[in-house]
Amino acid sequence: MTQTAFEALTVESLPGRLGGIAALVERLGEDSSAWKVREVGDGNLNLVFIVEGSKGAAVVKQALPYVRLVGDSWPLPLKRSFFEYHALKRQEARAPGTVPAIYHFDEAQALIVMEFLSPHIILRKELIAGRELPRIAEDLGLFTARTLFRGSDFHMATRDRKADLALFADNVELCGITEDLVFTDPYFEAKLNRHTSPQLDPLVAELRADRDLKVEAQRLKHLFASKAETLLHGDLHTGSIMVTDEETRVIDPEFAFYGPIAFDVGMLLANFWMAYFSQRGHEENGSRDSMRAYLLRTTAEIWSVFRGEFSRLWRTERTGMLYHRSLFEDRGDALGAEQALDRLLHEIWEDTLGFAGVEIHRRILGLAHNADFETIEDADLRASCEAPALKFGRHLAVNCRQIHSIEEVNNLAALIEKESRP
Amino acid sequence: MTQTAFEALTVESLPGRLGGIAALVERLGEDSSAWKVREVGDGNLNLVFIVEGSKGAAVVKQALPYVRLVGDSWPLPLKRSFFEYHALKRQEARAPGTVPAIYHFDEAQALIVMEFLSPHIILRKELIAGRELPRIAEDLGLFTARTLFRGSDFHMATRDRKADLALFADNVELCGITEDLVFTDPYFEAKLNRHTSPQLDPLVAELRADRDLKVEAQRLKHLFASKAETLLHGDLHTGSIMVTDEETRVIDPEFAFYGPIAFDVGMLLANFWMAYFSQRGHEENGSRDSMRAYLLRTTAEIWSVFRGEFSRLWRTERTGMLYHRSLFEDRGDALGAEQALDRLLHEIWEDTLGFAGVEIHRRILGLAHNADFETIEDADLRASCEAPALKFGRHLAVNCRQIHSIEEVNNLAALIEKESRP
Repeated sequence: MTQTAFEALTVESLPGRLGGIAALVERLGEDSSAWKVREVGDGNLNLVFIVEGSKGAAVVKQALPYVRLVGDSWPLPLKRSFFEYHALKRQEARAPGTVPAIYHFDEAQALIVMEFLSPHIILRKELIAGRELPRIAEDLGLFTARTLFRGSDFHMATRDRKADLALFADNVELCGITEDLVFTDPYFEAKLNRHTSPQLDPLVAELRADRDLKVEAQRLKHLFASKAETLLHGDLHTGSIMVTDEETRVIDPEFAFYGPIAFDVGMLLANFWMAYFSQRGHEENGSRDSMRAYLLRTTAEIWSVFRGEFSRLWRTERTGMLYHRSLFEDRGDALGAEQALDRLLHEIWEDTLGFAGVEIHRRILGLAHNADFETIEDADLRASCEAPALKFGRHLAVNCRQIHSIEEVNNLAALIEKESRP
Repeated sequence: MTQTAFEALTVESLPGRLGGIAALVERLGEDSSAWKVREVGDGNLNLVFIVEGSKGAAVVKQALPYVRLVGDSWPLPLKRSFFEYHALKRQEARAPGTVPAIYHFDEAQALIVMEFLSPHIILRKELIAGRELPRIAEDLGLFTARTLFRGSDFHMATRDRKADLALFADNVELCGITEDLVFTDPYFEAKLNRHTSPQLDPLVAELRADRDLKVEAQRLKHLFASKAETLLHGDLHTGSIMVTDEETRVIDPEFAFYGPIAFDVGMLLANFWMAYFSQRGHEENGSRDSMRAYLLRTTAEIWSVFRGEFSRLWRTERTGMLYHRSLFEDRGDALGAEQALDRLLHEIWEDTLGFAGVEIHRRILGLAHNADFETIEDADLRASCEAPALKFGRHLAVNCRQIHSIEEVNNLAALIEKESRP
């Protein structure tokens, strides 16, 4: 492909334009005119094509120079594709087998050709459908622990981490989306906001007048913007995860940048708690009691696996410059390293709850809602699911330093959910 | 100057090599053969020349490709000169009149030609001599508040801050010096360490076995390496400050990078507390009671001025993306912004004490000692000044979250100092 000026692919132009890429031909078959192409992008930002040939299939993801959800009135750099590519490379190295294999990357065309995951389905869709996936807690606990630990100064050579930090510091616009849409807009009457109205109006007004909540949300934004601790996925919700009963893959890391460990973990857990609160809106075919129990169990297991794997890596792969063994194990003070680990995990825990709280708020009050709630057509029913989620999110954000365990959080979720029933 | 391959200047070669620089000729006079050159670098890293001509004088500071204190066995990139130049530019913009004016910068030769400060004297020398400078508390409180506030996301456009963060992320080796020499080496038997021995041996062994202290020092290192909050000076001790009774200038920001606000403030205060503990070693010409009182008063005033100016800027120049007015003042909730300010200053306060504690330790236990103690020739006397300083540093680092005011800290310093007298 010699074309260098960016041009968006279409279903029609794709075979002609990508038919010369060896890595693609190898997987799909040589006769590109016989390739079947469909565009399946259902996200907010990009084009996504599934291309099938005589030998196999692949996914072609191409960034557009604007936000797809909004249109060309909201420009967005093509370079996000570059960040996604580099993040996928690092995630594969740090947690092998957890992301799609990459076949080809074209920076100028902002496109990544990657593995077609089949029969994988977006996790969020499965949770809305009430399916209890058996592997996700384990897989996601390991994915977060491994990518977040191994991308930090606990493990990496700090020279490499600093170079990577500088590389990803240019992902300004996508960080900006998070900074605005997650941490700021939901807490005042920003133009792009929307919520289920008028049902939620009184609660929304209450939250936007809640000083403690606003200050905490801004503390979390400060943390997000300044705590360059590790390479984050940056958008780790249940719509960025593809699953089968046997396998879990994490996709779409274009928001990747160096931020706080707790951000990925908090966003991930928040999406399970939202799924939990949304279940009542999906009971047309029967009770979701079992699904609700599964979702809370899943948050507890994710946290437990994350904590366990992070601790294991702390003890076995702490090769970076922080908390160096020369100060602890090498002087016969293994317990010093354990003390530091406890403190660190405690801090991650507190901030995880805080980030989870604001993630819940922005999905109900901000621009980018999620399908868990959005697919509940009856606005009264939807609001009756969203309201307790908002209250739960507020409690997490404001009280994150006083909550001791994930069981306590889940008990609170169950209490709020039960009390909100008509 | 057309020479591009780096070559260290000498007293002899300087006029010939720099005689063609217009900015220099303009200040010194055209006949460069009549320039008087002397090398005055007494720091650990660089060459510093004072050049005087018929019209005036200038300073030429040139980096060497190694650590001057150690020699070419410890290479150090010339690029630190680039970071110093860019830091000086930003400090001048953020706190006008507080740094030397720059006349010329040559990146390839790693040299900065700048204002010759006269009759300014290094602050540390003045404090050792027992001189009570009238302006430093006010000037340094303002310098820290202005440079640290205005280099952060409280004030800057975040795109600019992120670009700057990436620029300074390459200052790896100088950050590495701090990471190793301040936060790690003092707490174990590192090769480069030295201390007044055998007098301090039992106390040093006690500190290196102190688990809480080691864990806290590593927490602070983690903070230093990951909290990319603002552009720091990075080496803000009393040897980086030049004073007269009328004026205070801050020099040598080659350690500049994006780090936590509290680091600069903590290192600065620590150096006054060390001056305090060292006074007993300089009483050959009379009591230093007045000087001791002055030094404690100065720390209290620096903190008070810093806090006051930071608060003023918070209220008047909070134009960045963090704690945006749209969430607070614009909604009639000015008190929300005050609540956030209190919490932020409280966090800065805690970490300031922590950083101060480790800075004191490294100056007595690590590689780079300071003249306050080093100029006390009698080892017993020196150790009797250093020991209480070490204990004070340990108390600050480990108890930084439980100490409420700078008066409390100064009372503690006085108590420890008094109790340590023979």
